Amino acid sequence: MTLDLDTARRLIAGTRSAAHERGLKPLTVVVLDAGGHVVAAEREDGSSAKRFEIAHGKAYGAVSMGLGSRALMDRAEQQPYFIAAVTSAVGGSLVPVPGGVLVRDGDGTLLGAVGVTGDTSDNDEAAAVAGIGAAGLTAQPAA
Amino acid sequence: MTLDLDTARRLIAGTRSAAHERGLKPLTVVVLDAGGHVVAAEREDGSSAKRFEIAHGKAYGAVSMGLGSRALMDRAEQQPYFIAAVTSAVGGSLVPVPGGVLVRDGDGTLLGAVGVTGDTSDNDEAAAVAGIGAAGLTAQPAA
Amino acid sequence: MTLDLDTARRLIAGTRSAAHERGLKPLTVVVLDAGGHVVAAEREDGSSAKRFEIAHGKAYGAVSMGLGSRALMDRAEQQPYFIAAVTSAVGGSLVPVPGGVLVRDGDGTLLGAVGVTGDTSDNDEAAAVAGIGAAGLTAQPAA
Amino acid sequence: MTLDLDTARRLIAGTRSAAHERGLKPLTVVVLDAGGHVVAAEREDGSSAKRFEIAHGKAYGAVSMGLGSRALMDRAEQQPYFIAAVTSAVGGSLVPVPGGVLVRDGDGTLLGAVGVTGDTSDNDEAAAVAGIGAAGLTAQPAA
Repeated sequence: MTLDLDTARRLIAGTRSAAHERGLKPLTVVVLDAGGHVVAAEREDGSSAKRFEIAHGKAYGAVSMGLGSRALMDRAEQQPYFIAAVTSAVGGSLVPVPGGVLVRDGDGTLLGAVGVTGDTSDNDEAAAVAGIGAAGLTAQPAA
Repeated sequence: MTLDLDTARRLIAGTRSAAHERGLKPLTVVVLDAGGHVVAAEREDGSSAKRFEIAHGKAYGAVSMGLGSRALMDRAEQQPYFIAAVTSAVGGSLVPVPGGVLVRDGDGTLLGAVGVTGDTSDNDEAAAVAGIGAAGLTAQPAA
Repeated sequence: MTLDLDTARRLIAGTRSAAHERGLKPLTVVVLDAGGHVVAAEREDGSSAKRFEIAHGKAYGAVSMGLGSRALMDRAEQQPYFIAAVTSAVGGSLVPVPGGVLVRDGDGTLLGAVGVTGDTSDNDEAAAVAGIGAAGLTAQPAA
Repeated sequence: MTLDLDTARRLIAGTRSAAHERGLKPLTVVVLDAGGHVVAAEREDGSSAKRFEIAHGKAYGAVSMGLGSRALMDRAEQQPYFIAAVTSAVGGSLVPVPGGVLVRDGDGTLLGAVGVTGDTSDNDEAAAVAGIGAAGLTAQPAA
């Protein structure tokens, strides 16, 4: 595990706090380690039934490809068949819209990713970036 | 179960009654609870073989995302790869055309969704909205 | 559709009525036509989240193989790999325990199947058999 | 959502606290609502890569069938093909060993389930039961 539970909890708390300050809709936040495995997750009251899967897919796509999910959206716009093929190949789902943000430490080492869903994709990403910054770590939302 | 069987039966009866008054083609109606699980379903004579799956997919998409399926159609028009990705992520099928309508009570609490298929998508949705209203509940057909 | 909606509704009502007389736990009842497609379904309050899928699998196995699901249990006891292989082959799930009962008319023509789950498998089957009899049709619970 | 995020966080905190008092190995704890959807999850440092999926499968089986996962183990001992069939039918994984515990309120209403993995199955279950009790709710670990 490259991202410990205390850090994951701080990432979730920071993301949620940033979302509340901005008045966003109820969010679901999932934190994965660099291997793509769940470390922690929280779904706020009012966030719909399958939001865990969507937040997971944003973060999982980011870790799987080593790119923030905004870069995956750009790729999906150009080559939708590529994203469909990778979804099949990776043995899990990736959701190629903004809100899956890579987390790096001060040396640039990849620690994992935060996936957020519930508001617009742009707002989801902004909350994740703010939460990662509040934890003293570096956010990589795109390529 | 957030939507009991008696309510589900009234939703189906009301939807079918509204469809008959409008002279619509034979319909299939599926009612899901807020967790996306089947409470009741009826496929009218002449409604084709896989209509259960289509009605289910409209309602399932609505509950999964917390949006009426008309909003999912709008999203599919703009970002088809997003709907494809979510379909994979949620571990089931969602059908992003009108006719999957969220059901809320007077306080706005989500009870579940009605999915209708058989006529045009617009008519399917109109029947669902009428059936939900006849049951004294609130319909949310879009965002 | 080889089993019309009015008949399906009578099968469900008769099965539920028989279950209530016997004091069974809350049931889920699914009726499929001879092609294995859903005609109607009802999940009683207190019947757990995935009971539709289980009742469906009992009836689907029965229609798929032309045998009541009790016969599929016997086969599973003897050749579990066979049932696993058929599950994969049929493109859907079959649940090989009692409670999936074929429905035939007076001439022996196959109309479809009733699948029941919620109490013991034996009680589930007894309710289905009683419901089919109450509708004036012939139940085939085993081979 | 039948189990809110604050309750889910208390269930996780109580389960982890009970595990620490007993000196258990690092655990993963997943809380699902009554519809089987993730509300919150935490994987402790040292809990292996796929523990989220295992804890999820214990809780998911419990909610799907309306039984604690210890009852599913008993069923798997007697009819392994039944558990295999249900796993296919429900469209997800269920893990039929102790550690998936249903959560009910004082009226007996099902709120969801806690899934725990990391130590022995018996210890996993004991931690979940203690955590549910600490939250003032009722644990149902078996049938």
